[in-house]
Amino acid sequence: MKVSLIVFFFLVTSSSTTCFQQTSNEDYITTQIHLLRPKSGAAGYKVPQIDCLSWRLAVETYNLRNWKLVPESCENYVGHYMQGKQYRDDCEAVADIAINYAKNLTLARDGKEIWVFDIDETTLSNMPYYARSSVQFGAIPYNDTTFNAWVAEGKAPAVPGALRLYRTLLSLGIKPVFISGTKDIYRKVRISNLKKVGYLKWEKLILKGEADKGSAVEYKSKRRTELVEAGYRIVGNIGDQWSDLLGTNVGDRTFKVPDPMYYIG
Amino acid sequence: MKVSLIVFFFLVTSSSTTCFQQTSNEDYITTQIHLLRPKSGAAGYKVPQIDCLSWRLAVETYNLRNWKLVPESCENYVGHYMQGKQYRDDCEAVADIAINYAKNLTLARDGKEIWVFDIDETTLSNMPYYARSSVQFGAIPYNDTTFNAWVAEGKAPAVPGALRLYRTLLSLGIKPVFISGTKDIYRKVRISNLKKVGYLKWEKLILKGEADKGSAVEYKSKRRTELVEAGYRIVGNIGDQWSDLLGTNVGDRTFKVPDPMYYIG
Repeated sequence: MKVSLIVFFFLVTSSSTTCFQQTSNEDYITTQIHLLRPKSGAAGYKVPQIDCLSWRLAVETYNLRNWKLVPESCENYVGHYMQGKQYRDDCEAVADIAINYAKNLTLARDGKEIWVFDIDETTLSNMPYYARSSVQFGAIPYNDTTFNAWVAEGKAPAVPGALRLYRTLLSLGIKPVFISGTKDIYRKVRISNLKKVGYLKWEKLILKGEADKGSAVEYKSKRRTELVEAGYRIVGNIGDQWSDLLGTNVGDRTFKVPDPMYYIG
Repeated sequence: MKVSLIVFFFLVTSSSTTCFQQTSNEDYITTQIHLLRPKSGAAGYKVPQIDCLSWRLAVETYNLRNWKLVPESCENYVGHYMQGKQYRDDCEAVADIAINYAKNLTLARDGKEIWVFDIDETTLSNMPYYARSSVQFGAIPYNDTTFNAWVAEGKAPAVPGALRLYRTLLSLGIKPVFISGTKDIYRKVRISNLKKVGYLKWEKLILKGEADKGSAVEYKSKRRTELVEAGYRIVGNIGDQWSDLLGTNVGDRTFKVPDPMYYIG
């Protein structure tokens, strides 16, 4: 009972300090009224609220396309999802399914069987960058300069489950090929980042050159087609964007890793 | 503080009654040991548990394919999801996105612009059937006889949001075309069911004839191709199965309605 009383007193005291914190008169006037966003318009007409779970499902199922930003009202939701257990569980589940698929393949083991990996949010996670208050999990517009500076640090950790899939594929004789939208000028730092977290070898690491124009679907389709024309067989393909998994020569089977932070078309 | 103390005493008393409820000696012996499903195998090797949220996400993103049954451990989860607010919210969100897309189309309004609708779990809901204890939201194997008897009753309600999308499309001059895997022998009852819930007219209602063989993807692709060859333009396509949305002539844009109860390939 002692604990219960202590907790109770703590709540009473902490809430009162919050309510009556000292402020100058000017501060008081400018901060006291928090303007709520209207939940109903003229004549009580209901303004639909965004259900963040439904929004995320719409993103993951490719119902929503060409979206620019995480809705402001879902910023907290996306932050909690990405930093919490569910994102990890969801990524590990994708790895489980992909591993199960790979293990049940009848393989030729002729060195021509490859698995295409996207990099950002598929093999390397930019979460430390996206968690910054200046980025807010994608609720603030993309900043090319700060993002590239983050990439140049080469400190991205592995996406949950991705290393497990990568190692299983290597053990099966399926060769990893990375195809990323990262610019080729970052090749050196990307290689060191990949190696640092445990991706130690690969058949090819394809980054975006100056000559690569067009959409992500076009760029990645072109690169995959070149691989197929060189005699490779894409037995699997994994990415966090639908643009990784659509187009031509997508592979025998595709796997979508969750990413509610940004959209690349 | 009074309330806090009362709550505290209530918790103490209620938990003690639960712990020491009276049982006969025989009951005690047969019920006391609840056999847990093993969470670890030999030598402490961890057996992975199914995370039902991750499982559902894997279904909706097409990472999981050719699955036969809802996992037994997710039966309750799927039941709660389907009968609760989230399924409705998720369906309404799909309708919102599809309506927004349709309203922003530049239309020719030449009578050749069509929208393909699947029927089951897209326009008509079989939830009253799937909620039966003999079906358990797809955790019990599919029974052709009882399902067809349910279809023959013609009592399926509309899927949330679907009528709203249907009516918006009609108002825009986009003609609905239903393509369903339902057998053609159910045409009469399907028509009466559609009309009963508010789907009053359509350009075509395509059901599966005796001659239609092959997978759902093949059947639906063939029918869509016939429509395109007849001069129609598929501006949108909505379905609960990925087999509704893949193959040839899928339409200018596809929309996936949630369905964690069954898989059709």
